[in-house]
Amino acid sequence: MHARGNQKILELLKSKIRNIPDFPKKGIVFRDITTLLSDREGYRMTIDAFIKRYKAMDIDLIAGIEARGFLIGGAIAYELRKGLVPIRKKGKLPYKTVSHEYALEYGTDCIEVHIDAIKKGDRVLIIDDLLATGGTSLACAELVKKLGGVIVEIAFIVDLPDLGGRKKIEEAGYRYFSLVEFEGE
Amino acid sequence: MHARGNQKILELLKSKIRNIPDFPKKGIVFRDITTLLSDREGYRMTIDAFIKRYKAMDIDLIAGIEARGFLIGGAIAYELRKGLVPIRKKGKLPYKTVSHEYALEYGTDCIEVHIDAIKKGDRVLIIDDLLATGGTSLACAELVKKLGGVIVEIAFIVDLPDLGGRKKIEEAGYRYFSLVEFEGE
Repeated sequence: MHARGNQKILELLKSKIRNIPDFPKKGIVFRDITTLLSDREGYRMTIDAFIKRYKAMDIDLIAGIEARGFLIGGAIAYELRKGLVPIRKKGKLPYKTVSHEYALEYGTDCIEVHIDAIKKGDRVLIIDDLLATGGTSLACAELVKKLGGVIVEIAFIVDLPDLGGRKKIEEAGYRYFSLVEFEGE
Repeated sequence: MHARGNQKILELLKSKIRNIPDFPKKGIVFRDITTLLSDREGYRMTIDAFIKRYKAMDIDLIAGIEARGFLIGGAIAYELRKGLVPIRKKGKLPYKTVSHEYALEYGTDCIEVHIDAIKKGDRVLIIDDLLATGGTSLACAELVKKLGGVIVEIAFIVDLPDLGGRKKIEEAGYRYFSLVEFEGE
């Protein structure tokens, strides 16, 4: 679901996200969250909006998706007193891993997690900064499932609903959450 | 400086770091912090050890070094109510950047930060997971200085003092801090 509650706060968060036209290619408006994160009020309110949603839920681990998911996953894990698990690009983790390959617009990508990072039955909240087509998020969900983890929800700061990721996540049977959305992408 | 105070807690943190022999190459013992971070007590105590040191210091921004610095920088920024600035590998940040190239054992590397992420006079705490030779940390310090930032300290979970990074940081005139150290590398 899209965040409800204090619309004024969510509008404020949205206003602190920088729009960069024609990045990474012509016709795309890139939503740059770094301006939100480097703003001390913006960062605090962003994390607090996630805490508000998740503080009463049964969660064991926060899984952050490399690299921007790491920027928010840690603060959420800290405040909720959970462990933090990095999901990384292939070849970055030093111990034994399970991996999952997934299709990109051109070619494939591969993500990994340590085999002992998630135990059977662990309840995992997956965190990333932005939801576009949903390819990476769904690959992370597959990884968590390979280790027997239960996916509580997949959560983002920004959703670009016109790119179809939300729909794909829901069709795959997962719960979805975002703080703000930009339509008409 | 190396962390003092509750040695029992620091020994506990150290015991939760996984040692991986011969990674990334023969003869090197890799210190894998992911086992510390995925442990809910370990993650909480790690961040709290940084908070204890920095809560009374005059700091405006936390700068996390990609990618493992992001895993701890966000939680520190959140708890201290500061902004979070990512320092990234070349080509990853979408807006205008300043960059700094530095020497590796073979070849060079380049890191970047958004030109407006740090303002003249901002007091910046630089965070990374592990200090080895100090090359990346010192490059980050140069970047922060290029934007007029003042470096409060450069802080790590792990220091490998035998690799000389600590000495280089102190010789360059910066303050250094780590939670645990592994000698005899």
